[in-house]
Amino acid sequence: MNYELKYSKLGNNLKSSLIRELLKYASVPNAISFGGGVPDPETFPRHELSKIAAEVIENEYSYVLQYSTTEGDLELAKQMLNLLDKIYGINGLDETNIMFTTGSQQALELAGKVFLDEESIAIVENPFYLGAASAFRMRFSKFVSVSLEDDGMNVEVLEKKLKELDEKGEIKKVKFIYVIPNFHNPAGATLSLEKRKRIIELAEKYDLLIIEDDPYGLLRFEGEHLPSLFKLAGKERVILLNTFSKILAPGLRIGAVIADKEIVRKFVLAKQGTDLCSPALTQRIAARYLERYDLIEQITPTIKLYKSKRDTMIKAFEEYFSDIKGIKWIYPSGGLFTWVTLPEGFDTLEMFEIAKKKLVFYIPGQAFTPDDSKSPSMRMSFCLPPHEKIIEGVKRLKEVILEYGRNEGLI
Amino acid sequence: MNYELKYSKLGNNLKSSLIRELLKYASVPNAISFGGGVPDPETFPRHELSKIAAEVIENEYSYVLQYSTTEGDLELAKQMLNLLDKIYGINGLDETNIMFTTGSQQALELAGKVFLDEESIAIVENPFYLGAASAFRMRFSKFVSVSLEDDGMNVEVLEKKLKELDEKGEIKKVKFIYVIPNFHNPAGATLSLEKRKRIIELAEKYDLLIIEDDPYGLLRFEGEHLPSLFKLAGKERVILLNTFSKILAPGLRIGAVIADKEIVRKFVLAKQGTDLCSPALTQRIAARYLERYDLIEQITPTIKLYKSKRDTMIKAFEEYFSDIKGIKWIYPSGGLFTWVTLPEGFDTLEMFEIAKKKLVFYIPGQAFTPDDSKSPSMRMSFCLPPHEKIIEGVKRLKEVILEYGRNEGLI
Repeated sequence: MNYELKYSKLGNNLKSSLIRELLKYASVPNAISFGGGVPDPETFPRHELSKIAAEVIENEYSYVLQYSTTEGDLELAKQMLNLLDKIYGINGLDETNIMFTTGSQQALELAGKVFLDEESIAIVENPFYLGAASAFRMRFSKFVSVSLEDDGMNVEVLEKKLKELDEKGEIKKVKFIYVIPNFHNPAGATLSLEKRKRIIELAEKYDLLIIEDDPYGLLRFEGEHLPSLFKLAGKERVILLNTFSKILAPGLRIGAVIADKEIVRKFVLAKQGTDLCSPALTQRIAARYLERYDLIEQITPTIKLYKSKRDTMIKAFEEYFSDIKGIKWIYPSGGLFTWVTLPEGFDTLEMFEIAKKKLVFYIPGQAFTPDDSKSPSMRMSFCLPPHEKIIEGVKRLKEVILEYGRNEGLI
Repeated sequence: MNYELKYSKLGNNLKSSLIRELLKYASVPNAISFGGGVPDPETFPRHELSKIAAEVIENEYSYVLQYSTTEGDLELAKQMLNLLDKIYGINGLDETNIMFTTGSQQALELAGKVFLDEESIAIVENPFYLGAASAFRMRFSKFVSVSLEDDGMNVEVLEKKLKELDEKGEIKKVKFIYVIPNFHNPAGATLSLEKRKRIIELAEKYDLLIIEDDPYGLLRFEGEHLPSLFKLAGKERVILLNTFSKILAPGLRIGAVIADKEIVRKFVLAKQGTDLCSPALTQRIAARYLERYDLIEQITPTIKLYKSKRDTMIKAFEEYFSDIKGIKWIYPSGGLFTWVTLPEGFDTLEMFEIAKKKLVFYIPGQAFTPDDSKSPSMRMSFCLPPHEKIIEGVKRLKEVILEYGRNEGLI
């Protein structure tokens, strides 16, 4: 049977992501991988979760083993409302402003369903978070991208592009501005307060929604938490996406959509047809965990661990990369990633062939360009390898850069 | 902000399902509900699952609490391959033929993504499983429906409609035939062996895929298991959907797609952008459970329980309904549902107003018509109410039928 004749346009368009293909190599022996953005499993509170899981299955079986509501666990919503108040200073919400999703990937996919048509436009960052890209691409919408600087989206470019769209009569097609404000994936950058305010002004001027995706906000190593766009602009303007993947455990697959109740209602209806409900079990485990433990206290060692690894990586960059002319990197004040940009002419996807030989892995920037264009940048995750491997990996990477640079006559 | 201007066509089209709206009433005190198709929580093996959950979190935390592959747990795939062999006599498959989903609702949604465009046609049953309807409707495809008889799809109608589509030059738009062969939801009917073969012949003649959705097949009360369409026609022609919701616990949210590896690959790619992966935790719990316990043995008491409730309900129908001229019902040889059809002129959705007063609840057939047309039928689930409530509920329902029938001059 020729399945291609049966597939939809979407079915025929689905391709394996670059990142997944590349990460296959990362599991060879002696490889050092800065590729995956997955948390260190030693940071998961396994003893506590094990005990809670046994308890909730034994005592709350008629809830946790049964079909649940599409909206998700009300006990977890209660805990989430507490967290929003404590962490973001967001209050005045109730459970109608929250829906839980199967990881925040599902929240992105539902956002695509609810807002995007083929002729729609989404304003996105460049580099662009891959998960959002794959979700939004399933709607065949157009992206208008705005480059990132060390302090987030270039707001002059944003303003210019919105003005152009308005002049071309296309501003009504623009559905939202998608932004990762804290410790950006892949770029590590954090959006400054001034720029947050400017983005909100522009969204108000052109009557656009903002999707604020904040999986890493709590993983701040130093400095003050900046107010979220949701806090600054209110729920009529901003949809806040959150997740327990980076602060508790990704295997629970719990994301959250926090928004105006009318929008939450739409997301719920979209989720009904999509997977009916996420597991009640994992949500109730998280709810009981948050009830019993102080999350902020619990994640303090995780933050310390990641901070020390960030320090090791940046120190290694300074030691090994400082004589590579034109190289630069983001100094992330939290999260899991830094973003290294090589001099003009470098193509980190092409360079990957050498990296494979030298057994050091990163994600080429091309994986994050909205239009799949070549990139001299790469995403480097520091959360998983031990300190000595970070140093060794950066050494290897230097050799890779030098070899590629010489081969191509770039250095 | 006027969100309607921001919503996509899909977003603006999403409406709450009739079934959900109606079931809100079912939770009032003293109500008897034959509405929900959810299993009895007392059938869940909570002690075993509680123990296993604690163990896998404690010992396999770096797997169960971490991001997983999109394909799902390989240990569970191993168990699924065993089950397929033992239960369906399906062998010769390997893990590349299986993908796990967040409940089988997700499998239906991914089928929509992979196969259906707006101009596509799906052949469906009438009555039509609501979950499939809501998944496929998100693609705005067209349905061509084939009425169900006591022994499943009317194959003469199927043949006639396919012939018509062929003559109109539209057969290429037809992507698949969607069928629930065993103990149909909502109709309770089981597709006869002869008809299974005929559907396969027609699918071969017109080169169509078959999506065989079999959540209830193991819940057979009497008689022999019939061979699955997948077994009869092979993986090139049939996509088999399965779930642990009715035989273990729906709260785990584990569905399975069993298909040709090329099709599984497409589903995996569609799932990547949809929710990245389902929880590793719930999948590993199911895998370890299936490793340690004989599922067939474990579900024997469940089958006995549902069978005795089916008997109670059918006996109550015979006792209370036999003097209602023209009423008929399906005698289901397994599963959770029977399907009662009232004489012509009855509209079970309109009749629901009286049912609300009399505190007895069913799902009006209109919820399951592919074109939202009026229906004299209703879905009656016997799995959840205790025996005495089943009898009392049928008594109340008779009063409802009589009152409505008299009001409308139908009896």
